[in-house]
Amino acid sequence: MIPRYSRPDMVAIWTPESRFAIWFEIEAHATEKLGELGVVPPSAAKALWDWWATKPVIDVAAIDAIEAVTKHDVIAFLTWVAEQVGDEARFMHQGMTSSDVLDTCLAVQLKRAADLLIADVDRLLEVLERRAIEHKLTPTIGRSHGIHAEPVTFGLKLAQAHVEFQRCRKRLVDAREEIATCAISGAVGTFANIDPQVEEHVAAKLGLTPEPVSTQVIPRDRHAMFFAVLGVVASSIERLAIEVRHLQRTEVLEAEEYFSPGQKGSSAMPHKRNPVLTENLTGLARLVRSAVNPAMENVALWHERDISHSSVERGIAPDATITLDFALARLTGVIDKLLVYPVRMQKNLDKMGGLVHSQRVLLALTQAGVSREDAYRLVQRNAMKVWESDGELSLLELLKADPEVTAALSVNEMEDKFDLGYHFKHVDTIFQRVFGRYV
Amino acid sequence: MIPRYSRPDMVAIWTPESRFAIWFEIEAHATEKLGELGVVPPSAAKALWDWWATKPVIDVAAIDAIEAVTKHDVIAFLTWVAEQVGDEARFMHQGMTSSDVLDTCLAVQLKRAADLLIADVDRLLEVLERRAIEHKLTPTIGRSHGIHAEPVTFGLKLAQAHVEFQRCRKRLVDAREEIATCAISGAVGTFANIDPQVEEHVAAKLGLTPEPVSTQVIPRDRHAMFFAVLGVVASSIERLAIEVRHLQRTEVLEAEEYFSPGQKGSSAMPHKRNPVLTENLTGLARLVRSAVNPAMENVALWHERDISHSSVERGIAPDATITLDFALARLTGVIDKLLVYPVRMQKNLDKMGGLVHSQRVLLALTQAGVSREDAYRLVQRNAMKVWESDGELSLLELLKADPEVTAALSVNEMEDKFDLGYHFKHVDTIFQRVFGRYV
Amino acid sequence: MIPRYSRPDMVAIWTPESRFAIWFEIEAHATEKLGELGVVPPSAAKALWDWWATKPVIDVAAIDAIEAVTKHDVIAFLTWVAEQVGDEARFMHQGMTSSDVLDTCLAVQLKRAADLLIADVDRLLEVLERRAIEHKLTPTIGRSHGIHAEPVTFGLKLAQAHVEFQRCRKRLVDAREEIATCAISGAVGTFANIDPQVEEHVAAKLGLTPEPVSTQVIPRDRHAMFFAVLGVVASSIERLAIEVRHLQRTEVLEAEEYFSPGQKGSSAMPHKRNPVLTENLTGLARLVRSAVNPAMENVALWHERDISHSSVERGIAPDATITLDFALARLTGVIDKLLVYPVRMQKNLDKMGGLVHSQRVLLALTQAGVSREDAYRLVQRNAMKVWESDGELSLLELLKADPEVTAALSVNEMEDKFDLGYHFKHVDTIFQRVFGRYV
Amino acid sequence: MIPRYSRPDMVAIWTPESRFAIWFEIEAHATEKLGELGVVPPSAAKALWDWWATKPVIDVAAIDAIEAVTKHDVIAFLTWVAEQVGDEARFMHQGMTSSDVLDTCLAVQLKRAADLLIADVDRLLEVLERRAIEHKLTPTIGRSHGIHAEPVTFGLKLAQAHVEFQRCRKRLVDAREEIATCAISGAVGTFANIDPQVEEHVAAKLGLTPEPVSTQVIPRDRHAMFFAVLGVVASSIERLAIEVRHLQRTEVLEAEEYFSPGQKGSSAMPHKRNPVLTENLTGLARLVRSAVNPAMENVALWHERDISHSSVERGIAPDATITLDFALARLTGVIDKLLVYPVRMQKNLDKMGGLVHSQRVLLALTQAGVSREDAYRLVQRNAMKVWESDGELSLLELLKADPEVTAALSVNEMEDKFDLGYHFKHVDTIFQRVFGRYV
Repeated sequence: MIPRYSRPDMVAIWTPESRFAIWFEIEAHATEKLGELGVVPPSAAKALWDWWATKPVIDVAAIDAIEAVTKHDVIAFLTWVAEQVGDEARFMHQGMTSSDVLDTCLAVQLKRAADLLIADVDRLLEVLERRAIEHKLTPTIGRSHGIHAEPVTFGLKLAQAHVEFQRCRKRLVDAREEIATCAISGAVGTFANIDPQVEEHVAAKLGLTPEPVSTQVIPRDRHAMFFAVLGVVASSIERLAIEVRHLQRTEVLEAEEYFSPGQKGSSAMPHKRNPVLTENLTGLARLVRSAVNPAMENVALWHERDISHSSVERGIAPDATITLDFALARLTGVIDKLLVYPVRMQKNLDKMGGLVHSQRVLLALTQAGVSREDAYRLVQRNAMKVWESDGELSLLELLKADPEVTAALSVNEMEDKFDLGYHFKHVDTIFQRVFGRYV
Repeated sequence: MIPRYSRPDMVAIWTPESRFAIWFEIEAHATEKLGELGVVPPSAAKALWDWWATKPVIDVAAIDAIEAVTKHDVIAFLTWVAEQVGDEARFMHQGMTSSDVLDTCLAVQLKRAADLLIADVDRLLEVLERRAIEHKLTPTIGRSHGIHAEPVTFGLKLAQAHVEFQRCRKRLVDAREEIATCAISGAVGTFANIDPQVEEHVAAKLGLTPEPVSTQVIPRDRHAMFFAVLGVVASSIERLAIEVRHLQRTEVLEAEEYFSPGQKGSSAMPHKRNPVLTENLTGLARLVRSAVNPAMENVALWHERDISHSSVERGIAPDATITLDFALARLTGVIDKLLVYPVRMQKNLDKMGGLVHSQRVLLALTQAGVSREDAYRLVQRNAMKVWESDGELSLLELLKADPEVTAALSVNEMEDKFDLGYHFKHVDTIFQRVFGRYV
Repeated sequence: MIPRYSRPDMVAIWTPESRFAIWFEIEAHATEKLGELGVVPPSAAKALWDWWATKPVIDVAAIDAIEAVTKHDVIAFLTWVAEQVGDEARFMHQGMTSSDVLDTCLAVQLKRAADLLIADVDRLLEVLERRAIEHKLTPTIGRSHGIHAEPVTFGLKLAQAHVEFQRCRKRLVDAREEIATCAISGAVGTFANIDPQVEEHVAAKLGLTPEPVSTQVIPRDRHAMFFAVLGVVASSIERLAIEVRHLQRTEVLEAEEYFSPGQKGSSAMPHKRNPVLTENLTGLARLVRSAVNPAMENVALWHERDISHSSVERGIAPDATITLDFALARLTGVIDKLLVYPVRMQKNLDKMGGLVHSQRVLLALTQAGVSREDAYRLVQRNAMKVWESDGELSLLELLKADPEVTAALSVNEMEDKFDLGYHFKHVDTIFQRVFGRYV
Repeated sequence: MIPRYSRPDMVAIWTPESRFAIWFEIEAHATEKLGELGVVPPSAAKALWDWWATKPVIDVAAIDAIEAVTKHDVIAFLTWVAEQVGDEARFMHQGMTSSDVLDTCLAVQLKRAADLLIADVDRLLEVLERRAIEHKLTPTIGRSHGIHAEPVTFGLKLAQAHVEFQRCRKRLVDAREEIATCAISGAVGTFANIDPQVEEHVAAKLGLTPEPVSTQVIPRDRHAMFFAVLGVVASSIERLAIEVRHLQRTEVLEAEEYFSPGQKGSSAMPHKRNPVLTENLTGLARLVRSAVNPAMENVALWHERDISHSSVERGIAPDATITLDFALARLTGVIDKLLVYPVRMQKNLDKMGGLVHSQRVLLALTQAGVSREDAYRLVQRNAMKVWESDGELSLLELLKADPEVTAALSVNEMEDKFDLGYHFKHVDTIFQRVFGRYV
């Protein structure tokens, strides 16, 4: 975890205190069911919950000190709880194995992390929707290959991002469902020493589903899928971040990250206003993606389990979720406060002497009976002149002066092809697709 | 594509002939709708379909020759079709852009690839189910950390694999749905020169859904997700492959890949029978996973699109799908014909002098009123002697001779803890979870 | 391998014919030494070389047919050679194991691939040097964060690329040395059945060094390092490719990929001139990098070896080397023919109303006794006005009108700070560092 | 950074205090040279060093508080130093840009990290050498594909690891050299406002070399190479870790991680002794490797620089170096205290009824004039019987009873082929290669 790229709610999921609290709940719920089944005295769970109701402070240092001797974290925790609760605590963990606690705990943590990430995406979607509607009909040039192509609206760019993050939301919901399973199945997953009803009980209490087959551990294909989804979401963040970075380039300057009064862009160059937030997001996306490969390598554990996945997850589980949470929030802030410059957008749009309308002319020529090859040649020879003039010449004027073109199209027909509004007639259709309603 | 790791049906999806055939269908369906809308003469689509009905051979070399001049693949293709069909063909591609064809084609190809992969998984699931049921109650040792833990059955191992591949199947179905979209939206996705109804028509004809917002291209988060899923499936293949490799180790030898009569394991060592198929699968999994990162890097295209994704997809789209298809089929073959040695399994299970039952003794001691710490100590001190004897000593006999143990447990109680069947009482429950019925 | 991204010399290294020819040489050289050592009759090597001198065509199909039965490629090859050469051929491969042939062959292939890649880099360095010198003093704006910063020269950009590819060259040379080892050490690397002198002999003949400890295979950390270097080189290609893409953006247009007469940029938009070569290079870089992870996963083979690396290398060895060779050549072509527009560079440079000189003013103010904080504030408040005017206002004029500034600096002192040449006084120093001489 | 996988010396490199101390040294050395060059008063550097000589405590919180306002870390730091040192401090940072400080600092940190890693490898090499010599002639079975092949010695396994880590050491030395460069070149690397002599001076003082061309930043191909090397070293760690894990498997048990008296292998199964350290190393290797991809993606910064690399490096620079340092030390500990069981090795070696000698018989038959194909067939048919008997039958006895074999070889000749020592005659040669001397 990098403190400057973290937010408290997500960080809180990954503290030792949170982990131990979840461990306690798993053990206490399990002991409860074991009590019902007559395996342990019903008083055991009561003793645990009574103690818990006192809201005890979890003494992480004390537990760590015990672990330093036992070299086993769950035993250390159980020992410490027993010290607090007393004799009844010896019934905890009956028939269970450490991984029952560890893996179910991780499932709870990743589920909570997914909850936060989904809420993050929801806030981003709200902001994207508001800004998309605000700029629904703000004309701007569409670019393919970084080259001016044809007009779009700035709202369309944000609507695209919106529907992309709708997909990301769905992926996160699916990933949350995949990861939210509970395993209380004993040393090799056979329930030899613990009734499957305990697993069902704990699962229900924690909002999980029972893992169909665990083998001491919950199978890691679930986690691989989870982190792969985080990687995809990060990549979508990168896409939008790079859009903003491009728009803020000096020569383009169609939009800018909000620049607060006290901020200094450069220690050496006082005039600088840099898209540092979105550059940062580009880097954070790389960091989140770096979790994907190790998560996939974690799948092939040996036989019923080995523990190689554990160190990986101690790293990537907090790191990837904390970083992605931060990145989503930062992106939301960027879009929320993005300075948008419609005047500059129009200026850029006008910059190419009408080249953006070339395709319409091409089509008009074809429809007027010129062969596609000839039409292409006619438009291209005039377009190239405009191109080479750096926007000084006007495509419309050149076409009007080209006898092969005027032989096919009247001046009126030509002028009609240079109408900007023509390009936006289906914006409503697209917005309807994205937002599911007229906006 | 590596020929030796490929199968013809998947390879066929990626041939130039297949690609051009899909291009033709997209163009012809679009022309059809354009005809209905009155944009082009209805005769245009008819001319195209009439030609297509003659089952023309697609002359890849001729198209390539045109591309060598135009340096543009779709224009080359259109030119060639026009040469075949004649004058009516000039109405093709009206208002469309190359990517409308390319991206919709890729969607069709990836959807077909997903169909094959799902069918592959179905075959694997059949085989896994058959072998799991066959060995439902074949006892074998469960291993954590590569160390004997407690008994499981060989069927449980395969049932675990079954439910893991059920998850893989679901992921592939979801990935197929994600990827199966159609974009016919023009140069920057505004439908400026083409009615959205054309997209809807082509989508319906090809079994796709319209892409809500395309920007000349279909957004690459979809593809990133698709390849991420392939990476997860590959990782599950690796897991099962490594299980087989472990079982075939000389010292373990509980199962073996089928060894055909003419086969030579080693040019130098005639006695060798190596798990080469599953080793190969381990490598193939690495190859499939290698598509994930570039697919994620492809997401952040510039503005409405750049074409950096294209070369990546020319590599990973055929490579990852062909390799995964081959790997799934190979794994299915391995499991189908796997030589399973129950006698050896039992021999290995007996090898540790009863240590696998240690936990049951521990629990019995606890239930008899011994503190958890004391119980652990008592069992461990006897277990360590057995361990150090390399299985020559028997845990049961040592326990019987330990006065602290006999003070808590009778001989009958002890012997009862060494029953193998005890571990399998919930196998039915687990199989029920996996197969959804009693098997 | 993707045919359109491949060049014949590199492809030739990876054909079956090349592989079998190298296998033959390894076997024949080994047999030669075995003859000298009296292990086999000296006539054996003679028979092999005599046959080889006839320049026999290697019948790949025949060898494949044998392999289809034996399921073992080296045995298939030896059988086929024996059919050609006759009785003396039975002395081939004495005491060797297949991997002695396979791994030494791969070393030869990767070494040859490295030779080609180094030659590719050399050609790129030549072109970069020529263009760097050509534009040594062509002024252009330097950009940090995509925002105008201070002036540089276009030659400096290329000089930076030059020294970066000098480093890449060195890395390739090191990688070639790492990979060029020979193993002829038998089944588990003990030389039990073959004298180490055979390995030394074959190594010397093939320009390799003996592998200090092989264990049937050459250790895969060497290959991991090799492919990691390819990944770094690919990343440097990506950097320069992205520079070109940025420069070709419509709003920037300081340079352009060469656009050949017959070329069509877009089927729909005839005016388009897209940086498709460098976009393609961006994608190819992702492909080359995708080899790094599987190569690293290949290192941890089990015990003396497993064969999981083999399928990976069948993919990545040809793919990564062929793609990188193509990419280097393509980049060389792009730089060689790059259209550079100094007029446009100057126009962009002038665009910000002199903001690029803000730091010099800041320093002058500090040196005139203004505190750093005050100086920064003074410059920033004027710079921001220029910035917001979109370059309409001039920083120099605003400063001249700011009483707090004029209190510290005279008009002459201010004007002096707006000299472009000031920035280029150390270009010679930098070029000297890069090219090792005055250029 | 994961606290439990970190060691204090490496952690210390990455604290804010260390970073600020290095920043101070860079600024002070630069000011010193600027004083010599007459750009600033010589008293400025003196004031800085005088203050530094008081060993001031760096008040990280105070600097962070300033950064919270300025949103610029270097300005915050300079402001804080100015508060401490007084008026003379305003001459610091003249003509420099933040990245001059940041990137040179990172170079110092990575160089120091490399120093520690090299020292780690040296300790590992010492331990590997000692244990290799100790077990130079301890026979054990060599395994290919996890299957018994031919005899090796345990010392050979460790000698292989030794020479592999010699290579890793060399790679780290090269990586250290690559990364140890200094950039003090100003806003876009032109030295417009700072003399190149300052860079040379600071470089010399800090043990760095001047970066030939920096562009505000040090080019990131250097860092990509650095992290790629860490990934390769991690992969070699994984290889040796997996070897230990295999050797500790219950059925193999030829070696074990040291098991301390108080340690508990499993909360549920008191008999367990798990290779948890080497499993952990397997996971840590995945974590270190996860830095490679983002480091490579960092190379292609935009134009003279963007800052996307920064967040990546805040993560991977400490994480990868700290994790690798810990992993190397842990591996050293594992090998140092590894429990090696020669008796068990011999037992396993004998387990296959002499099959490990099959190749020698094959060769003897060939040399006795039997064709290779026939020899293979003869050996295989007997070997298969031994194999299927699970080591109950003896290959030697079967061969003695096979008339086709006895027709070619005498009993004495056959028995001679079953000598274990035969396999070890070149161990000295190999050890000589590895250790450079007779050991």
